[in-house]
Amino acid sequence: MTTRRLHLNAFLMGVGHHEAAWRHPRTEPARLNDVRHYQQLARVAERGRLDSVFLADGLALHGDVRHNALGGLEPLTLLSALAAVTDHIGLIATVSTTYNEPFHVARKFASLDHISGGRAGWNIVTSAGEAEARNFGIERPAHADRYARADEFLDVVTKLWDSWQDDAIVRDRDGGVYADTTRIHPIEHAGERFAVRGPLNTSRPPQGHPLLVQAGSSEAGKEFAARHAEAVFTAQQTLAEGREFYTDLKSRLARYGRSHDELLILPGISPIIGSTEAEAHRLERELQDLITPAYGLAQLSVLTGIELTHDALDRPLPDVSVETEGAQSRRKLVVDLARRENLTVRELLGRLAGGRGHRVVAGTPEQIADQIEEWFTAGAADGFNIMPPILPGGLEDFVDHVVPELQLRGLFRTEYEGRTLRENYGLPRPASRYAPSAVAARPEAVVAS
Amino acid sequence: MTTRRLHLNAFLMGVGHHEAAWRHPRTEPARLNDVRHYQQLARVAERGRLDSVFLADGLALHGDVRHNALGGLEPLTLLSALAAVTDHIGLIATVSTTYNEPFHVARKFASLDHISGGRAGWNIVTSAGEAEARNFGIERPAHADRYARADEFLDVVTKLWDSWQDDAIVRDRDGGVYADTTRIHPIEHAGERFAVRGPLNTSRPPQGHPLLVQAGSSEAGKEFAARHAEAVFTAQQTLAEGREFYTDLKSRLARYGRSHDELLILPGISPIIGSTEAEAHRLERELQDLITPAYGLAQLSVLTGIELTHDALDRPLPDVSVETEGAQSRRKLVVDLARRENLTVRELLGRLAGGRGHRVVAGTPEQIADQIEEWFTAGAADGFNIMPPILPGGLEDFVDHVVPELQLRGLFRTEYEGRTLRENYGLPRPASRYAPSAVAARPEAVVAS
Repeated sequence: MTTRRLHLNAFLMGVGHHEAAWRHPRTEPARLNDVRHYQQLARVAERGRLDSVFLADGLALHGDVRHNALGGLEPLTLLSALAAVTDHIGLIATVSTTYNEPFHVARKFASLDHISGGRAGWNIVTSAGEAEARNFGIERPAHADRYARADEFLDVVTKLWDSWQDDAIVRDRDGGVYADTTRIHPIEHAGERFAVRGPLNTSRPPQGHPLLVQAGSSEAGKEFAARHAEAVFTAQQTLAEGREFYTDLKSRLARYGRSHDELLILPGISPIIGSTEAEAHRLERELQDLITPAYGLAQLSVLTGIELTHDALDRPLPDVSVETEGAQSRRKLVVDLARRENLTVRELLGRLAGGRGHRVVAGTPEQIADQIEEWFTAGAADGFNIMPPILPGGLEDFVDHVVPELQLRGLFRTEYEGRTLRENYGLPRPASRYAPSAVAARPEAVVAS
Repeated sequence: MTTRRLHLNAFLMGVGHHEAAWRHPRTEPARLNDVRHYQQLARVAERGRLDSVFLADGLALHGDVRHNALGGLEPLTLLSALAAVTDHIGLIATVSTTYNEPFHVARKFASLDHISGGRAGWNIVTSAGEAEARNFGIERPAHADRYARADEFLDVVTKLWDSWQDDAIVRDRDGGVYADTTRIHPIEHAGERFAVRGPLNTSRPPQGHPLLVQAGSSEAGKEFAARHAEAVFTAQQTLAEGREFYTDLKSRLARYGRSHDELLILPGISPIIGSTEAEAHRLERELQDLITPAYGLAQLSVLTGIELTHDALDRPLPDVSVETEGAQSRRKLVVDLARRENLTVRELLGRLAGGRGHRVVAGTPEQIADQIEEWFTAGAADGFNIMPPILPGGLEDFVDHVVPELQLRGLFRTEYEGRTLRENYGLPRPASRYAPSAVAARPEAVVAS
């Protein structure tokens, strides 16, 4: 039996995940749209043998750009430029199923997978925001509709990725035959929301399917993840909550005929690293002192649906319903945090500034490694989504000081296991559903034969 | 007065523009989806000081993949990877206005423009094909509808590019102010086809607007170009036709308040280069001998709307209406060519195999340069869209042998004039329509003041 190994993803976000990162002397906010900044980050992550880098996304200017460094680059466009300067690291981009067409999404990820030699991953989101709907001229779809669309969307996209069998290209120059067209299939999808003939006009991606990633923690989100996702990014504040989520999500896999190890769960963690505890806490305090309360108040107002002003800062969070729509798992996390620790709004803002609800841990490299090891061995995580408070410094500190500690403990790889993102995540390469062997393996086909 | 200079674009297409390129011993068809192949091409073009590289695109598997190397990469995804390994050359991608949303298109080109330091260009197409409509679950829109949508699409996209003024980001770390939000504008577009609030969530592109390129030669296409385009790629077989098109299109600019030098016209040319005439003709013959008639027959059947079989090969082209829809400018070009030169179908296929209706010229570097100079000085071209028959060899031959000849004649640059694609094309950088000076310059604003 092979040893169970951690998987680590570097969640890249501008000049850092802390909302005041752009004001800290260790960052350069002028590099927000400088591709070399992100290329440097990807190279650092690769030096640390991390599995992947990941870019979040939204389709509107979310948050108060007066007080934070927003307005960055579109993830898929950026990841191609990172593919060009790296060799091993996985490249995961967020793309919405609500405001896109499956043909485009299948094609762009297939292209990124070719360009990167099999390192593409898609973080599937359904775009909850009102502001996004307004940029596409539609009413914001209801939660259930978004997930129903996402389900069919995934069906179409994976069919398109399968539409060229792996052996379709024969490249017979003498005979003048480039492809065996009996191995390229129109998908003839005609569903409730999409009608797509296919085939895709890009040949099969090196990974078969680029890796499918998801981050929703609502009931519908968890079912979607159990059905489709191969890696899940999640926000969990306590070990108990982390274990509960982990056990819950893994237990849902069986009903889709999937085993426990076909989906990896990676909670977010923002590590504030110092060579001593005091140094770590000094960095944390520096960042907290740079917070502009107006920014956090605006964010928290959107999240809770309550208009919060400066007057509210030194009082407890007002009563907030956490049951609306069943979609607001992040809202529930934040309200639970405020209630559990009896925080004022100002204190809550301080707790959210580092990771927007993700867990923030300040300490020495050994202490950070302890936390990672504890969750990993206690059944709360298969790995972590690393969210450095400042970039590039915070990622460099993690790679240079925490990664070696995790390697020393035998928890993390010292060399990449494979060439593709799937290989490094230890996940199988899906066969094309149109390949004869795949068809023969289907129960209906067996009955018919 | 500065000397008028040629502009040259390298039109990259797989392993070459000749339909039999993939069968020729000087190509490697296994590199069709290998990013390093395209990176090498971009570097060669940059070594030759070419203005730009360009990627065509369609949203369906067009043509007979049994007999040609199809199924390549999505252009925008690929261009980011080319940006990463080049410093000067412009990067032009084809994106359809019929099957996309303006918010996505504005954002992706803004991102590519940031990533490349101001080298992005958008070749605007409206997607005539039936196969494309079937991949998006809609009926193929009529020609006029496609162009009406394209007009409003451009309006939305340019508003989004303008939505952040150039001076919006103030980055005041001490004061905690990242952006002056009075300089970031919702666009509040509410038109016949689109409702988009904005602003864009990517800051203003370095070029203001990425370069707008267009290739339609129908009546509606020419009007669209006169209104929006800054460079036009076109297929013209004879000098007389080239001059007619050039004069026609330039004369349309005035009605949109634009001057002659605000739109550059670049006819396509496929140069088959040899160090002697005999060598050039040998290469041409080698390629012609590798043609699979079935491939050309299928293409020609789609273009003409007539089912053509092998029986038709040695007869003249049957009668074809060239007036349908007013959209089929390429159909007219092909039928005119067959009639003018009294070609059999087989001979016509041979003439189309090199450049799908674009002009093919075989000769020595001096002879190719003569052709380019003749069209340039006779008022038929501001430059050329270079379509090498085989890649990378044909582009290397052009850069190493034709470019020096053009430089010797004082027709082409020896160093890049500027940093951005606009600067090298000699085109101005548009101001944001929301900047106070731009507002003041509008007639209404003057009247109101």
